[in-house]
Amino acid sequence: MIIIMERNATKVQKLRVIDLLKDNGFEVRCNEGDVHTVIDALGDKTSLTPGRLAALEGVKEVKVIREPFRLASRDRKEEDTVIEFHNGVKIGGDNKPVFMVGPCSVEDDYNGLLKVAKAAKEMGCEFLRGGAFKPRTSPYDFQGYGEKALQFLRKAADATGLLTVSEIMDASDLDMMCKYVDVLQIGARNVQNFKLLHAVGKCNKPVILKRGLSSTIREFLLAAEHILYYGNQNVILCERGIRSFDSAFTRNVMDIASIPVIKKYSHLPIIVDPSHGTGQRYLIEPMAKAGLVVGADGVMIEVHHDPEYALSDGKQSLSIPMFKDIMKRLNSFNNRLHYEKTCLSANVK
Amino acid sequence: MIIIMERNATKVQKLRVIDLLKDNGFEVRCNEGDVHTVIDALGDKTSLTPGRLAALEGVKEVKVIREPFRLASRDRKEEDTVIEFHNGVKIGGDNKPVFMVGPCSVEDDYNGLLKVAKAAKEMGCEFLRGGAFKPRTSPYDFQGYGEKALQFLRKAADATGLLTVSEIMDASDLDMMCKYVDVLQIGARNVQNFKLLHAVGKCNKPVILKRGLSSTIREFLLAAEHILYYGNQNVILCERGIRSFDSAFTRNVMDIASIPVIKKYSHLPIIVDPSHGTGQRYLIEPMAKAGLVVGADGVMIEVHHDPEYALSDGKQSLSIPMFKDIMKRLNSFNNRLHYEKTCLSANVK
Amino acid sequence: MIIIMERNATKVQKLRVIDLLKDNGFEVRCNEGDVHTVIDALGDKTSLTPGRLAALEGVKEVKVIREPFRLASRDRKEEDTVIEFHNGVKIGGDNKPVFMVGPCSVEDDYNGLLKVAKAAKEMGCEFLRGGAFKPRTSPYDFQGYGEKALQFLRKAADATGLLTVSEIMDASDLDMMCKYVDVLQIGARNVQNFKLLHAVGKCNKPVILKRGLSSTIREFLLAAEHILYYGNQNVILCERGIRSFDSAFTRNVMDIASIPVIKKYSHLPIIVDPSHGTGQRYLIEPMAKAGLVVGADGVMIEVHHDPEYALSDGKQSLSIPMFKDIMKRLNSFNNRLHYEKTCLSANVK
Amino acid sequence: MIIIMERNATKVQKLRVIDLLKDNGFEVRCNEGDVHTVIDALGDKTSLTPGRLAALEGVKEVKVIREPFRLASRDRKEEDTVIEFHNGVKIGGDNKPVFMVGPCSVEDDYNGLLKVAKAAKEMGCEFLRGGAFKPRTSPYDFQGYGEKALQFLRKAADATGLLTVSEIMDASDLDMMCKYVDVLQIGARNVQNFKLLHAVGKCNKPVILKRGLSSTIREFLLAAEHILYYGNQNVILCERGIRSFDSAFTRNVMDIASIPVIKKYSHLPIIVDPSHGTGQRYLIEPMAKAGLVVGADGVMIEVHHDPEYALSDGKQSLSIPMFKDIMKRLNSFNNRLHYEKTCLSANVK
Repeated sequence: MIIIMERNATKVQKLRVIDLLKDNGFEVRCNEGDVHTVIDALGDKTSLTPGRLAALEGVKEVKVIREPFRLASRDRKEEDTVIEFHNGVKIGGDNKPVFMVGPCSVEDDYNGLLKVAKAAKEMGCEFLRGGAFKPRTSPYDFQGYGEKALQFLRKAADATGLLTVSEIMDASDLDMMCKYVDVLQIGARNVQNFKLLHAVGKCNKPVILKRGLSSTIREFLLAAEHILYYGNQNVILCERGIRSFDSAFTRNVMDIASIPVIKKYSHLPIIVDPSHGTGQRYLIEPMAKAGLVVGADGVMIEVHHDPEYALSDGKQSLSIPMFKDIMKRLNSFNNRLHYEKTCLSANVK
Repeated sequence: MIIIMERNATKVQKLRVIDLLKDNGFEVRCNEGDVHTVIDALGDKTSLTPGRLAALEGVKEVKVIREPFRLASRDRKEEDTVIEFHNGVKIGGDNKPVFMVGPCSVEDDYNGLLKVAKAAKEMGCEFLRGGAFKPRTSPYDFQGYGEKALQFLRKAADATGLLTVSEIMDASDLDMMCKYVDVLQIGARNVQNFKLLHAVGKCNKPVILKRGLSSTIREFLLAAEHILYYGNQNVILCERGIRSFDSAFTRNVMDIASIPVIKKYSHLPIIVDPSHGTGQRYLIEPMAKAGLVVGADGVMIEVHHDPEYALSDGKQSLSIPMFKDIMKRLNSFNNRLHYEKTCLSANVK
Repeated sequence: MIIIMERNATKVQKLRVIDLLKDNGFEVRCNEGDVHTVIDALGDKTSLTPGRLAALEGVKEVKVIREPFRLASRDRKEEDTVIEFHNGVKIGGDNKPVFMVGPCSVEDDYNGLLKVAKAAKEMGCEFLRGGAFKPRTSPYDFQGYGEKALQFLRKAADATGLLTVSEIMDASDLDMMCKYVDVLQIGARNVQNFKLLHAVGKCNKPVILKRGLSSTIREFLLAAEHILYYGNQNVILCERGIRSFDSAFTRNVMDIASIPVIKKYSHLPIIVDPSHGTGQRYLIEPMAKAGLVVGADGVMIEVHHDPEYALSDGKQSLSIPMFKDIMKRLNSFNNRLHYEKTCLSANVK
Repeated sequence: MIIIMERNATKVQKLRVIDLLKDNGFEVRCNEGDVHTVIDALGDKTSLTPGRLAALEGVKEVKVIREPFRLASRDRKEEDTVIEFHNGVKIGGDNKPVFMVGPCSVEDDYNGLLKVAKAAKEMGCEFLRGGAFKPRTSPYDFQGYGEKALQFLRKAADATGLLTVSEIMDASDLDMMCKYVDVLQIGARNVQNFKLLHAVGKCNKPVILKRGLSSTIREFLLAAEHILYYGNQNVILCERGIRSFDSAFTRNVMDIASIPVIKKYSHLPIIVDPSHGTGQRYLIEPMAKAGLVVGADGVMIEVHHDPEYALSDGKQSLSIPMFKDIMKRLNSFNNRLHYEKTCLSANVK
């Protein structure tokens, strides 16, 4: 840590900082500049937090050198985390990026869901996704069908040989949900619902953690850190757009660059969700490609058997024919990228 | 609602929209402009959501005329909501703004907390606040003392005649917390934790709902709507700063104007939290005054008996002597504003 | 236009709006809802601005149906704008995306610049870019070499057969700059310097207009509209990142989705600048590909013969060997995308 | 400066940094941590910029200790800057905050303007403001009456004994404008139009510099630094709202806390503009008070003799009766605050 003192900090204030650092086992170097005094604290102790130091009189700023996420960091684990499912599907590392598709909410129409599942399987997708509990900004909107939705999801997935993904909104639903889903999803609005992060951290089920609307990359990785810290190492990150000053043409701004940034600093897999990221059907194909080309490990797409009748997010859902049309091109794009990446790395070796 | 069709929408697409509106009981007027067709739907039906219409082919945009928050709106309830406590303290309406003070986290030091409570009482404050469960960005930071903290809080409040405020992080803690606190607080990170909003909505305990880091005013009032919708009408809003592009000098940007905006559109009381809103001790006094001058119904301030040893948010906490010094001026400011407001309205009548 | 009246607007206020609309030649329809009155104004008149209507008492909101940019819009001009240079290079439409490379600032070292120009030519790039006048946040930073820099730029471009791009900062430099450059650039900070937009609007030289740090897409297209309105139709837009709440890992957030959005609503070509967009060397290749894959008409990249000695933006500049290495892959990617796009459209026909 | 090296920086890379620092006269201390090496550079040299260091291989981040604005900083000049006009009016320091009022644009109606000027004088305001050249987002909006507007402004001000303020948009208008105005204004969109900053920096006329829509506080003070650096010390800052993710109820978010922040770090006076800051008439009075209570040195308010016919910004302009009504309360508020501030400081002495 580096402690920058105020311009007019007193000698006593400086000594107070130095003593506290030494008491906590840091090696201390004090540099008296023309204007500011800068105190370097060497060592990686957790007994003294930056906030504690910042509260001392005369301290202007505490600069932490090391990234605060540790288990999520490549410093601690160099190789990519790969998550493997019982049927052999893998996410992360050099594996070919996966596709997760399905309706925003599972509705009271099993046959509709099954149509989507069949189309997903036909197009080579690996996961069927669908919400059972919907976080809705307004209490007047549809809130989801609950456990019944999960039963439908499981049944349609089993009928087609897909894996399931669904969002968990409350720790008390954990055991029930684990019966039906292969991957738990934590939504953008719950990215700092720490009780929920700790609960999923204590189980072993893979978790997709969506970036919050206004999460910085560092906060996003720290949210993942909460899950890792409680024991669950199977975390998949998901970029789904952040809030900006402009929402006239797209719901959110997709931070495509965050994908290679996170790949550099963390070993965790990361997928991309262009449906929520843009809120516009016509942007799903280009933004899925943009995500893949910068290194995403998967793509999540909303598909509904009849978007005009969808109970939520119909505007951004693809119909089955649109989905098949787009998936043809996405598959070809994905295959080629993957071929080049694995060939290239093979040649380099 | 107003439905704006795409420039190249077909006749069939327009008829589809019109039929759906009529089927749901709306009165429909269709205006064919030079470029766009605009369809007006008159009526206030909840059977057809804007999202459902937006999903139809050929629809460019659906514009909702009425604000989506209804129970929180002045349209529904003209007069200010006033929340009254057993000891006669009132929040909202023409009542004098209240002060809620105390440490960020209650720590394992009852005497320290009691010192703060005594100072609060001495300076005329009404509430003692303190966290028992702390939402922390990093899992390596102090997470709160739990129920023991609440026992300390209650005891110190009872010893001094104050009311208590503490943050709830999980619905499962509700019954336990209600034993100790007079006001439940929902933190900024949980502003769209709908399970939690619904849980506190089902009890009668007053709730402080903090604005999310990136909540729009409309989303903030919709979050309150979730609580009102489930039955609890005792909601107090809290402006505590929003996230902007600049965090070099202040943690957040306080949206002071949101206070008179919310007063215009909603009947709910709103308080201001300059400690979290700025993260800087020297800004607490001026920003508390700014909040009061635009009409806030209360102020929340972090005070710690020894900020340099605080386990969280020490940087922005006032020590007891600083607090007393500032409160003298805040009390005098608050008294005069209140005197003028009540005199003025008396004269107007 | 749609005029939404306040909930409590009086009859007189409504009539005032209606009369003003009729006086200006609009066809008027008035819808009295349960809560709000909504007035539809049909017609496309410029004599009455939305702001004028918004100022009337009792008006809550004026909603404009048509996009305010007209000359820049596909409504007015369906086919893509293509800009052709004397040597046959073309930007926009179905032409293969171009590359513009060179140092942030041209420095007092002609040989260094020539090295970059040679490498650019060798790798198939079309444009040599370099700043002569630098907009710098701090007055203590290097401000550019002025006309001498432009002479170097022209000489190095002529020696290698490249076209030149350089930023104009003041209308008074226009004639001088036109002697040296093939494309004028207007920087992000000047996107609403209307005097400058009007000046370049009156000449015929192609102009690259960079998106402002906090320009919405609509404002960006309106800035282009100023240039088009004054007569210059040769406008090339450039996405170079917007300001967000997170600048820890990237300087700006690249709004990759804005490229297909703008392609949908405007006929103007748009290029992408991953150097300024991210501020990080390691992100240039992936973000250039992301831009190309969503339809950008070109890529701008900072290359310096010796980045460690660059007088500005060295951190994000590529050295010549790095540049060549990356360009090999970018060329192959660009060629294939272009082949597919032109083949595909040929097949469709 | 502090140079933080990448985790895997090589010994050669570290030595390169150290040598470059030493060559430029810095005193260097190198701290080898467990993970990162941190190099402290002591001294205040301008020969080596942080950007130059950041471009070196192996450098992760360069942290500048001292604020980059120097002439604008309290480090350099402890006492408040006070700007005095020929008629004795003063801005800054312990002087009573001033009021600047008038229409957004001066229109072709001298009598209308004179009415506003008379009302301003009657209510004790010091400045008449009005635009002659209007920066307008759309080219289809009114662009201002030019020099004729300035003649009207001067005439109306002279007739009533007021000082004049008007916005300059281009350096070439400087001499002409100086004939008519007492204070030049640089608008938010030109805050980084460095050519314009340098031009006004070379004259002696007081300048109001408005904060840009997305200027950080540091960038805002650096923009002022450009003016100071070229010689003009008479700079008045103006907070007028920043861009956020929410513009449904207010045009911008007023960063009220930036006023006491800037007062702490800079000696320059700062005023507040609630008309542009909120875009809503009903927010002008509360937000003017909020600005004054945190220490603003003045308030700028848009007043039009007939807002419903204003050619720009009518929505946020006050009519003359509204203005007088509000000014009565603002004057009383301002007088009392000023009395307390000067009494208090007198007592403290």
